[in-house]
Amino acid sequence: MALTETVEKKGLSLILFSGDLDKAMAAFTIACAAAGRGYPVYIFFTFWGISLLRKERGRGKGVLEKMFKLLLPVGPEKTGLSKLNFCGIGGALMRLLIRKRGTQSLQELIEMAMERKVNFIACQASMKILGLRRSELISYDLLTEGNAETFLEKAEASKVQLFI
Amino acid sequence: MALTETVEKKGLSLILFSGDLDKAMAAFTIACAAAGRGYPVYIFFTFWGISLLRKERGRGKGVLEKMFKLLLPVGPEKTGLSKLNFCGIGGALMRLLIRKRGTQSLQELIEMAMERKVNFIACQASMKILGLRRSELISYDLLTEGNAETFLEKAEASKVQLFI
Amino acid sequence: MALTETVEKKGLSLILFSGDLDKAMAAFTIACAAAGRGYPVYIFFTFWGISLLRKERGRGKGVLEKMFKLLLPVGPEKTGLSKLNFCGIGGALMRLLIRKRGTQSLQELIEMAMERKVNFIACQASMKILGLRRSELISYDLLTEGNAETFLEKAEASKVQLFI
Repeated sequence: MALTETVEKKGLSLILFSGDLDKAMAAFTIACAAAGRGYPVYIFFTFWGISLLRKERGRGKGVLEKMFKLLLPVGPEKTGLSKLNFCGIGGALMRLLIRKRGTQSLQELIEMAMERKVNFIACQASMKILGLRRSELISYDLLTEGNAETFLEKAEASKVQLFI
Repeated sequence: MALTETVEKKGLSLILFSGDLDKAMAAFTIACAAAGRGYPVYIFFTFWGISLLRKERGRGKGVLEKMFKLLLPVGPEKTGLSKLNFCGIGGALMRLLIRKRGTQSLQELIEMAMERKVNFIACQASMKILGLRRSELISYDLLTEGNAETFLEKAEASKVQLFI
Repeated sequence: MALTETVEKKGLSLILFSGDLDKAMAAFTIACAAAGRGYPVYIFFTFWGISLLRKERGRGKGVLEKMFKLLLPVGPEKTGLSKLNFCGIGGALMRLLIRKRGTQSLQELIEMAMERKVNFIACQASMKILGLRRSELISYDLLTEGNAETFLEKAEASKVQLFI
């Protein structure tokens, strides 16, 4: 019987399905901490999570797409809470509380993730369904496009996997 | 010191707690990709996720159960979005967008998962609480009943575990 | 090439982000089953999840904090469902169904987790943002405070990691 050599693979593969302020903050807090510990970190932005990568509203093709693109938030400053949002009031309150406490905002956490070389992967199927083009997403060297296969490849090599 | 032999266990164990169209699509997309890579795949349908396995509405015993069974969707064609659902309009729009884009519908993803021999496990505690009987769920050879113990057994042997 | 010795680490590290009745029940059911199998179990209570650890409402400092603390539930008996909650009616119905079926309530599951020595970790950043003090949380020997680093340390040593 051959003994396999095991390389202790750390690493975090995180699917960010939610685009909510609170969940995105949790995701980026964990991602930044993991990158700080020297893990390779991969965030897969899918469905609502992709809204965090949008830098501009962009034009939709057709009525349906236009509607969805209007309803979907653009960037981390426009997202609401997953609970107690009350049409945006909860999100605004949370942002005020965060500023008051001196804790990091979502925008700051995303920038820290970029400084720490966290890999961003935008889900191609979600981009297709929501009608988002690459040019509508933020510029970042480590932002690539991928699919479920890409996630599984990275997940296999990661110690920790989360769906947020 | 004895060296342990490590068998590289791939495999995906996924708890599908949500019955929402968008989250279920994410879950089945990953499950199908994993099965395509030759992973053994286990989906544990719990709470709202069980609604995806219902083939008929069934009769509730008592008023409470009747209410819950009426409110709980029946099958993948009736589920809404986790966000922007607007009483079903969001779900309908999403279904239209998916058809227009030529991407796979949830129903097609579930069928693909079955073709790829993904194991379905219905959570017994959830069935008990919601008053669902086995006969009200879809027919599928690889559909069994289980509990948290069953999940942990499969999770121990899987590389990737997700709660969706 | 040196062969590394691998110790089969079981263990469950669970981030409980949600404070919803249904999700918390799923989390504690898995945690209790894992502890019953002899896993070391760690639950990280973050954001809304922290409301489950509150024993009293406590006073907020300033208007914003007062508002949030009023809106945030206190303890497991006050949480609602993630779906079909209808301002608390869904949660009340679910509690009635659970009692009727003779299945365990969330309160009972939490007590069982404590008996089985599940480790509770309250997220310091969330406590800071929500203005919660240690004295407002339940008394439990195995309740400590921690951050994302603490989670990653435990996650590295755990076979199963979930974000709920």
